[in-house]
Amino acid sequence: MKIKVTQEKLSKALNVVSRIAIGKATLPILNNVLIRVNQKKVSLITTNLDMAVEDYLPVSESEDGVITVPAKLLAEFVSNLPKGDNIEITSKDTKVTIKSGQYTSTINGALADDFPELPEIDEKNSVIYKIGVDEFKNSINQVMIASSNDLTRPALTGVFFNTYDKNLAIAATDGYRLAEKKIIDKVESEVKAIVPTSSLQEVLRSISDEVEEIEISFNEDLVRFRLGDVEIISKLIDESFPDYQKLIPKNNNISVELNREELIRVTKLAALFARSVGGSIVCEAKSPDIFSVKSIANEFGENDSHIETKVENAGKINLNSRFLLDALNALDEPDIKFEFSDRIAPVVLKNKKSKDYTHIVMPLNS
Amino acid sequence: MKIKVTQEKLSKALNVVSRIAIGKATLPILNNVLIRVNQKKVSLITTNLDMAVEDYLPVSESEDGVITVPAKLLAEFVSNLPKGDNIEITSKDTKVTIKSGQYTSTINGALADDFPELPEIDEKNSVIYKIGVDEFKNSINQVMIASSNDLTRPALTGVFFNTYDKNLAIAATDGYRLAEKKIIDKVESEVKAIVPTSSLQEVLRSISDEVEEIEISFNEDLVRFRLGDVEIISKLIDESFPDYQKLIPKNNNISVELNREELIRVTKLAALFARSVGGSIVCEAKSPDIFSVKSIANEFGENDSHIETKVENAGKINLNSRFLLDALNALDEPDIKFEFSDRIAPVVLKNKKSKDYTHIVMPLNS
Repeated sequence: MKIKVTQEKLSKALNVVSRIAIGKATLPILNNVLIRVNQKKVSLITTNLDMAVEDYLPVSESEDGVITVPAKLLAEFVSNLPKGDNIEITSKDTKVTIKSGQYTSTINGALADDFPELPEIDEKNSVIYKIGVDEFKNSINQVMIASSNDLTRPALTGVFFNTYDKNLAIAATDGYRLAEKKIIDKVESEVKAIVPTSSLQEVLRSISDEVEEIEISFNEDLVRFRLGDVEIISKLIDESFPDYQKLIPKNNNISVELNREELIRVTKLAALFARSVGGSIVCEAKSPDIFSVKSIANEFGENDSHIETKVENAGKINLNSRFLLDALNALDEPDIKFEFSDRIAPVVLKNKKSKDYTHIVMPLNS
Repeated sequence: MKIKVTQEKLSKALNVVSRIAIGKATLPILNNVLIRVNQKKVSLITTNLDMAVEDYLPVSESEDGVITVPAKLLAEFVSNLPKGDNIEITSKDTKVTIKSGQYTSTINGALADDFPELPEIDEKNSVIYKIGVDEFKNSINQVMIASSNDLTRPALTGVFFNTYDKNLAIAATDGYRLAEKKIIDKVESEVKAIVPTSSLQEVLRSISDEVEEIEISFNEDLVRFRLGDVEIISKLIDESFPDYQKLIPKNNNISVELNREELIRVTKLAALFARSVGGSIVCEAKSPDIFSVKSIANEFGENDSHIETKVENAGKINLNSRFLLDALNALDEPDIKFEFSDRIAPVVLKNKKSKDYTHIVMPLNS
């Protein structure tokens, strides 16, 4: 195996693939990056068994072969070499030699035979979507925050991609809040698949400036994200996602329009006083035309901030201030709608104009 | 007590003073900031018993009085209020009310009687120095890195301010390396005083853009740093500092001139391979005119990087790569001198031209 490549290109590719290369005591080869050269095509591949990252590397010279080498060590070594230099990597048995000017290193690698590669996606039996990179990034960020870290409920640790009414929507919930975004309309093919949030985070981190469009392919148990020269393949979560649409209240009788920045400010002020009660705050719509946010606790003192707005029906509800702030930060218009009906049903938060994003927050017991 | 002040000024002052306000279970009032209004002069004061930070606040209106209030809560509350607003703070008994437009809060404070203020510096019996703020910042950063965290050797947890040969020098050592910088020449008055590194870090953090000069006043057991409207008073460390000058080798027979960036690069490359041996590397000057840096270990592979330079006497020495990198990052000229004599005496690192900074690193056993 031999490749010649510029420091910039190699360093960039190694930074993308090496993040998930975290060896386990029982399987140290997961520390390694697989370097495969096949008829001038060079791939760098890492995997953590749940997902794999592959980057195609444009090289000036190559000889076929395959080897694995500790990914983070190689990435850090290459990132410290001078920019603009040409780097030559050769392998002999399990020894991998990296040369660049007066810098030479031989790193102990391992044969590729033991490297656990994920299966390829079968393109023929796949459902494929394409989406602009900015829309993808924003939407995943808007939804992902509502997903759970609780490994005992695997379905909630992912983002649910699901088609209905000719829309592709993504949704996540941790049982306390739920976020849904419609990301593509007029879709032809259907999908119901839960993608691990951790894989989506890796996809977001791997998007470089040159990428304009992302191709997403689903088959039975895998999803592949193609972003320029980088491919990320992830296992799907083999569980059924809750029937979330029935959780979204349809008939809230209290609806208040609020300036988003203003509501963020009063929520933060109230949250400062709510630390001793896990962030519990009371939001209240009251006449004449006042929306107030208060801490439930008064150990540190009292706080009462309000926003002037049109109030038709009065009511109040207890919320976790962190969940409310997460929702407000995920909304992206200057004005938003805060809708609820009583102390038991969830609050619905939406942008004032666009209808594609819905965030609901369960109330706290009062 | 009453003050009226703009959000910007109050928020800035609270951010400076609130950092050290960390209450102890036995003395919760250390969480608080003392607000003292005396004939239109408003001070905010916090202390952690070892040091105190005081900021003078320009206000538009005031009524005399004194109160203490949780510093971080007040700082966060004020930082979330709209910029440009005027804030009114009033106290009644221990209740402190903050008002700004539609935002009102009452925070539970505590009477000032229990607040443990540090003594004032007695100006008449003080030694006073003045130094430009950039020179001060750079010099403290160059020296402070060599100080120790080991609380069992208190003298080494500070920076030693000492005059000799009409120079004011600062020095620090943790027993493994030592840094000295001459910061003021032609001084008239003498000082020998150890200032806690933690206090100096607080001084560095408190320097704002408007400050051009720092006034440093020492008396028997206190030091005061005056930076514009901020004063930081710290206890001195009541110990004797090691006689460090005799630790600096005077007659190293191997002296190599190296490009600093280049030496940083080869040290980092070698350090990657030296992780399993605590960062031990070998630096070697050898003919013909090569300076090489290698890892001692070869668990991960082998690494040999070199720099071409003029070598008159050959020799090698084992060093901790982190200490060498700290020293190289503290030096500030493009070219530096690396001087040593044998495997036992310390390495001396200096800028090629300026003579005011000296950094020595003890060798590792080989």
